[in-house]
Amino acid sequence: MKQSARGDRKQILGGLDLGGTKIQAVLLDAHGTVLSQTRRPTPQEGGPAAIIEALNATLVEVGRLAELDPERLAGVGVGAPGAVDPNTGTLLQAGNLPGWNEPYPLAQELSKRAKVPVFLGNDVQVAVAAESRLGAGKDFRSMLGVWWGTGVGGGLIINGQRWTGRGAAGEIGHIVVRRGGARCSCGRRGCMEAYAGRGAMERMARKAVKHGYSTRLFDLMEAKGKDRLTSGIWARALDKGDALAEKLVHRALRMLGAGIASAVNLLDVEAVIIGGGLGTRLGQPYVDRIRTAMQPHLFVPQRPPELRLSGLGELSGAIGAALLADPTSRRD
Amino acid sequence: MKQSARGDRKQILGGLDLGGTKIQAVLLDAHGTVLSQTRRPTPQEGGPAAIIEALNATLVEVGRLAELDPERLAGVGVGAPGAVDPNTGTLLQAGNLPGWNEPYPLAQELSKRAKVPVFLGNDVQVAVAAESRLGAGKDFRSMLGVWWGTGVGGGLIINGQRWTGRGAAGEIGHIVVRRGGARCSCGRRGCMEAYAGRGAMERMARKAVKHGYSTRLFDLMEAKGKDRLTSGIWARALDKGDALAEKLVHRALRMLGAGIASAVNLLDVEAVIIGGGLGTRLGQPYVDRIRTAMQPHLFVPQRPPELRLSGLGELSGAIGAALLADPTSRRD
Repeated sequence: MKQSARGDRKQILGGLDLGGTKIQAVLLDAHGTVLSQTRRPTPQEGGPAAIIEALNATLVEVGRLAELDPERLAGVGVGAPGAVDPNTGTLLQAGNLPGWNEPYPLAQELSKRAKVPVFLGNDVQVAVAAESRLGAGKDFRSMLGVWWGTGVGGGLIINGQRWTGRGAAGEIGHIVVRRGGARCSCGRRGCMEAYAGRGAMERMARKAVKHGYSTRLFDLMEAKGKDRLTSGIWARALDKGDALAEKLVHRALRMLGAGIASAVNLLDVEAVIIGGGLGTRLGQPYVDRIRTAMQPHLFVPQRPPELRLSGLGELSGAIGAALLADPTSRRD
Repeated sequence: MKQSARGDRKQILGGLDLGGTKIQAVLLDAHGTVLSQTRRPTPQEGGPAAIIEALNATLVEVGRLAELDPERLAGVGVGAPGAVDPNTGTLLQAGNLPGWNEPYPLAQELSKRAKVPVFLGNDVQVAVAAESRLGAGKDFRSMLGVWWGTGVGGGLIINGQRWTGRGAAGEIGHIVVRRGGARCSCGRRGCMEAYAGRGAMERMARKAVKHGYSTRLFDLMEAKGKDRLTSGIWARALDKGDALAEKLVHRALRMLGAGIASAVNLLDVEAVIIGGGLGTRLGQPYVDRIRTAMQPHLFVPQRPPELRLSGLGELSGAIGAALLADPTSRRD
């Protein structure tokens, strides 16, 4: 990022990480420092129009916290789940977002509303780019980010630059680790995500309970007033030595090991960064277990890549979104 | 490649593709045209020194065919199997080459002998680069080459440039397609090569015969005076409708489909080029079958990559080696 005086508000960027349940916002200065942050729930009704309103309100709020009008920002980036067209700022497909059933010119509409230039990127791709620029990937010219959450997403840095292919690169969750294996939420079989995604793990846990397994996972869920197994619930169950949780996490780790090692055999990157809701929540001990699970599959086992936990944690997506608006880092 | 007068011999490059059984040589002019070609067997005794002698003799011979002294070449490239250090021209590890048990300064020794600058690269990586520059990959800025032979090798072009990672990128044969599955020649389990490599297919065929399967594969082998199942023998058996050959090739294709689709999900490249001994020999109908086998595993199935057969065929390795010596295409 270009150096500038700390007070130069023209260089301040806004970042919005649009998720299925919440919108996370940050303001970022030219040094990559987070000036303010806030979050609010993603509207579950009203479709794209309601979401644009909520994005704008979150932006106004994160600006207010830093005493800054959004119109005075150099630009705003949005990281969104699903397929994006970065050139037109259109969100093509976002199964995760309530009521979002067809392509929608997100950047253009938010730009009209907020009166500031808006740039759009895929949420995981920008989070990984943020780790490369400001986080755990800073020391590397090539890296693979693996975002372990409800699904397993990914992003690539090749030669110091984000590699997005024809727009959809990084789908490491859909590397096939067992041809003909478990059904994935994408409809296909044997994908890594079908074993390692938190969504798949919850489905397997529910099935196991039906088959008579005992577990504290769902008691913990009810005690927390949740209707799904969050990362925190998995972490708690593991802490308590719950056998089913350990069994399912162990299987997830084995599959992450095989899939990530496959990617490393293909790309020979310097580093792998583990992020995402579950990755961040379970933290370093589980990064170490992924390292162990990768080892038997590495083609050059004597020289494994560096394996690191995300350095920016749950802000990586919003920070990466802000970097989309940085004129010194944009491609094209 | 820089344009120059056709007669400018300073721009002529030599390429040597060093394999376990043969050395293939070409001379290449500045337009990428092959001026002459020849091959000779790889010495099976005498180790690195004998191989350097044979490389030099092949170079002298390919020069003679074009009435050109090797010393007058602009440079010579060597593509070698295994791990190379391109900066020092050292072949680090080449299990495939008889008597080659430790790192050896191949480029330096051949350069001394031939009195011409010598550059070293990995055989499959340079073959894929040749396809990108002059062959089936010319139209694409990103591609994956899959070299289907005794093993399954690969190479990557990202942003129009060869991507070699930390030196070993492209090992698509060692993507895990069935965790815990068949034993691979690399010692690990479930690699794509453990099902799709010609070596693995031959081992499975021998095992099937032991278990009472009938096949014409080994009769064809004996009739040809061979001691292993060459690509030509597989092609012949398939032509004759041999059930075991079809079964094993079908399994190989399924695994190639899963493994290549995994790589495409990760990299979202524009094109996949199929080469290698078996790929080239079986040709377009089998490229089409790989396409069909990939389809169920593609994360963006409505937009598959272009899938093409190698355009340079069995010369791709030697042409790619020659391009290593082209000053306009060298990195670093």
